[in-house]
Amino acid sequence: MAGRRLQLPLLCLLLQGATAILFAIFVRYDQETDAARWHWGNHSNADNEFYFRYPSFQDVHAMVFVGFGFLMVFLQRYGYSSLGFTFLLAAFALQWATLVQGFLRSYQDGYIPVGMESMIDADFCAGALLISLGAVLGRTGPAQLLLMALLEVALFGLNEFVLLCLLEVRDAGGSMTIHSFGAYFGLVLSRVLYKPHLEKSKHRQGSVYHSDLFAMIGTMFLWIFWPSFNSALTSRGAGQPRTALNTYYSLTASTLSTFALSALVEEDGRLDMVHVQNAALAGGVVVGTASEMMLTPFGALAAGCLAGAVSTLGYKFFTPILESKFKIQDTCGVHNLHGMPGILGALLGALVTGLATHDAYGDGLQTVFPLIAEGQRSATSQAVYQLFGLFVTLVFASVGGGIVGFLLRLPYLDAPSDSQCYEDQIYWEVPEVHDEAQEALRIEEADSQA
Amino acid sequence: MAGRRLQLPLLCLLLQGATAILFAIFVRYDQETDAARWHWGNHSNADNEFYFRYPSFQDVHAMVFVGFGFLMVFLQRYGYSSLGFTFLLAAFALQWATLVQGFLRSYQDGYIPVGMESMIDADFCAGALLISLGAVLGRTGPAQLLLMALLEVALFGLNEFVLLCLLEVRDAGGSMTIHSFGAYFGLVLSRVLYKPHLEKSKHRQGSVYHSDLFAMIGTMFLWIFWPSFNSALTSRGAGQPRTALNTYYSLTASTLSTFALSALVEEDGRLDMVHVQNAALAGGVVVGTASEMMLTPFGALAAGCLAGAVSTLGYKFFTPILESKFKIQDTCGVHNLHGMPGILGALLGALVTGLATHDAYGDGLQTVFPLIAEGQRSATSQAVYQLFGLFVTLVFASVGGGIVGFLLRLPYLDAPSDSQCYEDQIYWEVPEVHDEAQEALRIEEADSQA
Amino acid sequence: MAGRRLQLPLLCLLLQGATAILFAIFVRYDQETDAARWHWGNHSNADNEFYFRYPSFQDVHAMVFVGFGFLMVFLQRYGYSSLGFTFLLAAFALQWATLVQGFLRSYQDGYIPVGMESMIDADFCAGALLISLGAVLGRTGPAQLLLMALLEVALFGLNEFVLLCLLEVRDAGGSMTIHSFGAYFGLVLSRVLYKPHLEKSKHRQGSVYHSDLFAMIGTMFLWIFWPSFNSALTSRGAGQPRTALNTYYSLTASTLSTFALSALVEEDGRLDMVHVQNAALAGGVVVGTASEMMLTPFGALAAGCLAGAVSTLGYKFFTPILESKFKIQDTCGVHNLHGMPGILGALLGALVTGLATHDAYGDGLQTVFPLIAEGQRSATSQAVYQLFGLFVTLVFASVGGGIVGFLLRLPYLDAPSDSQCYEDQIYWEVPEVHDEAQEALRIEEADSQA
Repeated sequence: MAGRRLQLPLLCLLLQGATAILFAIFVRYDQETDAARWHWGNHSNADNEFYFRYPSFQDVHAMVFVGFGFLMVFLQRYGYSSLGFTFLLAAFALQWATLVQGFLRSYQDGYIPVGMESMIDADFCAGALLISLGAVLGRTGPAQLLLMALLEVALFGLNEFVLLCLLEVRDAGGSMTIHSFGAYFGLVLSRVLYKPHLEKSKHRQGSVYHSDLFAMIGTMFLWIFWPSFNSALTSRGAGQPRTALNTYYSLTASTLSTFALSALVEEDGRLDMVHVQNAALAGGVVVGTASEMMLTPFGALAAGCLAGAVSTLGYKFFTPILESKFKIQDTCGVHNLHGMPGILGALLGALVTGLATHDAYGDGLQTVFPLIAEGQRSATSQAVYQLFGLFVTLVFASVGGGIVGFLLRLPYLDAPSDSQCYEDQIYWEVPEVHDEAQEALRIEEADSQA
Repeated sequence: MAGRRLQLPLLCLLLQGATAILFAIFVRYDQETDAARWHWGNHSNADNEFYFRYPSFQDVHAMVFVGFGFLMVFLQRYGYSSLGFTFLLAAFALQWATLVQGFLRSYQDGYIPVGMESMIDADFCAGALLISLGAVLGRTGPAQLLLMALLEVALFGLNEFVLLCLLEVRDAGGSMTIHSFGAYFGLVLSRVLYKPHLEKSKHRQGSVYHSDLFAMIGTMFLWIFWPSFNSALTSRGAGQPRTALNTYYSLTASTLSTFALSALVEEDGRLDMVHVQNAALAGGVVVGTASEMMLTPFGALAAGCLAGAVSTLGYKFFTPILESKFKIQDTCGVHNLHGMPGILGALLGALVTGLATHDAYGDGLQTVFPLIAEGQRSATSQAVYQLFGLFVTLVFASVGGGIVGFLLRLPYLDAPSDSQCYEDQIYWEVPEVHDEAQEALRIEEADSQA
Repeated sequence: MAGRRLQLPLLCLLLQGATAILFAIFVRYDQETDAARWHWGNHSNADNEFYFRYPSFQDVHAMVFVGFGFLMVFLQRYGYSSLGFTFLLAAFALQWATLVQGFLRSYQDGYIPVGMESMIDADFCAGALLISLGAVLGRTGPAQLLLMALLEVALFGLNEFVLLCLLEVRDAGGSMTIHSFGAYFGLVLSRVLYKPHLEKSKHRQGSVYHSDLFAMIGTMFLWIFWPSFNSALTSRGAGQPRTALNTYYSLTASTLSTFALSALVEEDGRLDMVHVQNAALAGGVVVGTASEMMLTPFGALAAGCLAGAVSTLGYKFFTPILESKFKIQDTCGVHNLHGMPGILGALLGALVTGLATHDAYGDGLQTVFPLIAEGQRSATSQAVYQLFGLFVTLVFASVGGGIVGFLLRLPYLDAPSDSQCYEDQIYWEVPEVHDEAQEALRIEEADSQA
């Protein structure tokens, strides 16, 4: 217990100290946020990225914290941890991603410039991290999670750099860089951390009535702000409103297909709240790559409809198989919400890319596919690059998740035992109402020590 | 049971399939979202509607989903349905309203152009639909509700077209088109669907402590974002900030008068949460038409104060009479929050219109009352048109609600029996905590079949 | 009881009536919201404050209502009151602050002009009022609170006027004007209203599991929107994005240091939800003054880290001493979240001001420190003014809080007895679930009358 007592504080302070020192050495205001370098002359109003990006930034920020945070509160006794660890991991990730993404993508003259765009970039990285958290939620302690964050953010940055800067793949809303990466990293990690006797914690793995309502706060926020998420870093002009519009329609379709499939697959035709909370959102994931493109409103509906159906079927049929056959436990079903729809989104992106023509995009081709517009790549070749980007992402995610998983099994990281999973009281002071639960837990602890 | 099992899935898929096909044939990106048709030259920054409308769009979107959705969670055992059906209906409405409003208002050269403005329009229509849902909430099944959505959205679009395009009535925030229409459509519908033995479900009709707190999430979101709602489609220049400002002050006044009246009408001077959750919002409804106009800040306070008082008194005295005398059951009291304040808002709008002068509006007259500015109508004549708009709305809502009500009584739409109302377990898998409830329900079901 | 029954309604109507009359006489649309005075020519797009301020306004509005409102819902039986009184006080404050701030700061030619900026100003004032509410929450009735609002808003306006207009102190996010003022006003007020037998209500003073999750809604909203809060009234150009960026990083650091210290100070290394709900936010308070300045990203991290640590230690060690030794009861621990971090923020602001050079700020010096740029003050002299501003604020808050406290002890204001604190049923109709509680309360009431 003495070890646990000091482990989390020391790790927090160590990580905060390290990033603070790196910030002191490397991080500087960019031209947009530096009082001395900003001039109205340099920034015609049309170019002032702040006024353009700021509302999107706040929407993305809200979606990442409230959305992902509350979505994970469905567990009946893990609400403190879901919200608390979301907070802790995302706060660290915003700092650390600023450094990693800065070194890889904007480092210049010895400094990393930061501003509105880097803040959105960091929030995107935090989103991927929280997706991975969803896979292992309840079966990992905060020290393990901080270590995961440290390594995953670095890998995320590297993968993103390879895709966006080296392969010059298009992925505005992150079907590949955020959703596929986050999901498969988390799933492979979960495989390595497999807990064989999890049935001892099974009684805490479900939701209760009110915890499901809290989770719906998360669902609503994700659903509402996804148009801003996908369009936050797209180009000005027609790009951003088109991205928002495609995302908006895709989500409506995934919602309808989720309700249809949910009622269809349950024995008595009842709806399942888990499907509505999650699969209804698959429409946002599946257009993460293609929403920036000329997907057409019909294309958005079709993609969303497919994603909602695949995701719902995944929750019903695939998640149990993942656990029983592949030994992959997936608390929030991130494979269904982010994994499969993410891959579908990457494939859809490649398809729509391959169909791109100068006619369809006109002058807008320059902003969506600059390499095609400049004649450096054909549409087909860009589509192949898109597919290769997906492949690279899956490799990074799987290998990375595997390696990190083995590191997280280090014994002094104090993982919860199989009977202590999905339980806030391991990490939090919990009000006394849970008296019986506390008693039961004390017995379990005594058992597990005996 | 087999019927119920297939009914909702088939209806969802049928509706989704139909709208998708119509989207494929008719819906195209507008000039603002189409890569090929967008040119910086065409869109001086001042005219770029996206950057102007986008923050308002996200606020309206948040208000419609989180606001209306959570406001209806006050029922103790109907939270899944309140949020789930909100989601389902609104998602379908966004698609279907795009088509209906597009055909009536922007159809050109065989196509419906969509962009930021059409997205806000569709969200407005979803708002009206959710108001009607509030009237019949808990006494209707999802198949009935989807059919209601199909028909109500079409009627909403038609009424809106008559008012805004034929009568050229002003109604920026929808006192008539959204609130009055939604409320009276729902109330007449509720009358037709009257359940005589609802006392069998009475024990589930109230709130519990936590469900009231969830409902307050909805109240807060509606209260906060109402300035954006009323101003989302107003003209640039002074119009939008004035609309936001009037709404802001009207809501503060309705809040104060709600607290005053709530404490006054209760026997022991205690406050009633239902009033705070609902009547405090009446200030947003009552300035739905007039907030765009030169209402003056004092006018906004006076209107809000009146609306809060009328709404609170309505909850206390009128809702019970509606049910007992007029056989109109009104779950959320939409008559008090949207019906009466909506009519008051239409009347206020006509009054302020009648008082409009060239002096008071200056150059702004062109944007608020173009027909008066162009000399085609006098202020008085525009005011008469405004009143006629209210009349048309009430006719459309009542006749429409009546007809739709008779359709929804078709037996194979599987309405809940009088003893099964306000109960999630009819439609949802509910966690086992509700064991006793489930047992009680099984007995009820057995009874009702016997 | 007859007195209580009429007291709140009459007070609400009286206050509403008075502000409405004052609005009618004095308040007019400003040039930005008045149809007749607005001309596109006068407002080049770059100067149109509405499109610049509006998204920030909605973020601030959301933060003040949802953020402060839900943060106070942690009390197990005071959720109705926390949300309801937040609503009531803030709604009144928005009206009354418009008048007070208007008379002091923008009154001209017999009128107070209102628009987007005055709306943000009024929301800031409401924020300070809700901070004070946090100190006395649960131990004051609504009539007392409305009287507090009436007087505190006036004092807030006066203090703000002295600081911003007379001393020309910089305080964009209100470390002094909002946080220090609100906290110390509330704490001195609480001292005067000291309840010696509060242990009779002790059993209701803690949280329950779900009430803590509701409180986290507040925490999340405050955390997310704090960048908009601090930057809402900063200058255009580099000022606003820099302010948002500094706040963003400061909050990440206070979150990490809060987790570190929380686990460190608890006996068994467990985390305390109270710390996460509150201390994690101290990073927003501590940069309230300095975030507008060239604090550097590292400076933001360091400041946030310190604030989170101080705040967490305050909750653990200082709050109990405040109550036992100084007889200051502090329901929400505003001393830890707003008091100490507010003072630290003022000191940090003075420090960063003292270090300001023409080199570091370039042309931006004019917008951040106009008096230094114009040569009227040296950096050191401006720093001394900043410190004097803190001193003035503490004097205003303490003297004001004391005087108001004595007024609130007037017997006919019907304060709750020591055994009736933190209990919704005194003021609200509460659903019958709380039957036992109601019974216990009835006995308590009988006792206290005997």
